[in-house]
Amino acid sequence: MDRPVVPLGRPRAERADAKRNRLRLLAVAREMLAESGPGGVTMDALAERAGLGKGTVFRRFGTRAGIFKALLEEEARRFQELVLAGPPPLGPGAGPAERLVAYGRVRIAFLIDNIDVARAAMERDLGRPAVEVDMTLVHLRMLLAQSGLGVRDPESLAVQLAAALEGPLLLYVTSARAVGTDAEEAGVRLADAWQDLVERLFRSDSK
Amino acid sequence: MDRPVVPLGRPRAERADAKRNRLRLLAVAREMLAESGPGGVTMDALAERAGLGKGTVFRRFGTRAGIFKALLEEEARRFQELVLAGPPPLGPGAGPAERLVAYGRVRIAFLIDNIDVARAAMERDLGRPAVEVDMTLVHLRMLLAQSGLGVRDPESLAVQLAAALEGPLLLYVTSARAVGTDAEEAGVRLADAWQDLVERLFRSDSK
Repeated sequence: MDRPVVPLGRPRAERADAKRNRLRLLAVAREMLAESGPGGVTMDALAERAGLGKGTVFRRFGTRAGIFKALLEEEARRFQELVLAGPPPLGPGAGPAERLVAYGRVRIAFLIDNIDVARAAMERDLGRPAVEVDMTLVHLRMLLAQSGLGVRDPESLAVQLAAALEGPLLLYVTSARAVGTDAEEAGVRLADAWQDLVERLFRSDSK
Repeated sequence: MDRPVVPLGRPRAERADAKRNRLRLLAVAREMLAESGPGGVTMDALAERAGLGKGTVFRRFGTRAGIFKALLEEEARRFQELVLAGPPPLGPGAGPAERLVAYGRVRIAFLIDNIDVARAAMERDLGRPAVEVDMTLVHLRMLLAQSGLGVRDPESLAVQLAAALEGPLLLYVTSARAVGTDAEEAGVRLADAWQDLVERLFRSDSK
């Protein structure tokens, strides 16, 4: 990119640097996570392995929890792209009921896959999971509106279904319960129960 | 009560004292709450008005949030008694679907009525609402088991319905949103939507 004659280029150059550093740090954090779990990812170790200054890591993430938050946001962005523009039935092109079922199934798998990261992303002083639930509410609201399901109050139903979908796993994230086959199994059961619930809602309308 | 000959009476006498103090403190706290809202209830003001030492209040509640937790527990106990032994359809004697609807409606009203207290009961360092949600799960599980609703996994459905019922209002409790007509209105809508959801689940089975 050409440098402008008036030296306004510096902020732009810094932003490009910052982006490069962010991507590098996230890639290295993912490597460390895969190798030794969340416990192995610290601010110091990340800086050292990425070959960047501790100041850079600190400015970027603020706290150790900030690293996991950033990883979670990146995963959430990827998931959202699949919902918005990926293949059906998760993406557009299938009917609303089928998309509701698919969304719930993939969302549950996403939360199970990211429980360790989501736990590590919780700020100790806030005690709240860093998992973004607004995306689910927005998506369910849209699909229910499209569905023409004859409920009296689709907005409230969207809120309740979002809670039904996210709630049980958010409790998992904030509890001290061990993750592993336990969570996997809970995820499979919750996904089946979600499908059952959605199918019943639609069946009650058509009959 | 007669004093036993062997002087084992002291712990028992202390427990009776403690109970009297607890009931007195809760009654006074409720008065103060009614007069001036949660802001008016402090450890010092409570001790003074109850005519008890600050040490007694501190030992009983630990923190200011502890006062509100105790108030909430008392209300929850009263609610639970109505569920277990009160008149139908909240209490026993009505069909499972009707009792599910009634439970949700009364539970939502309970949460709306107690939002201020529940907020004040949150420990700042934990960030979690002090509202007990296990009661709901246990009760929904029982009613679903009684209902003979032909779902594949009643346990998971109970978990999801409990989240659908409690989740939206727990978000209210933990958010900074103003309470008032706003929450009242949300409560009415959520109660209607809950009824719609439960009735649809049962309708899908019978047809």
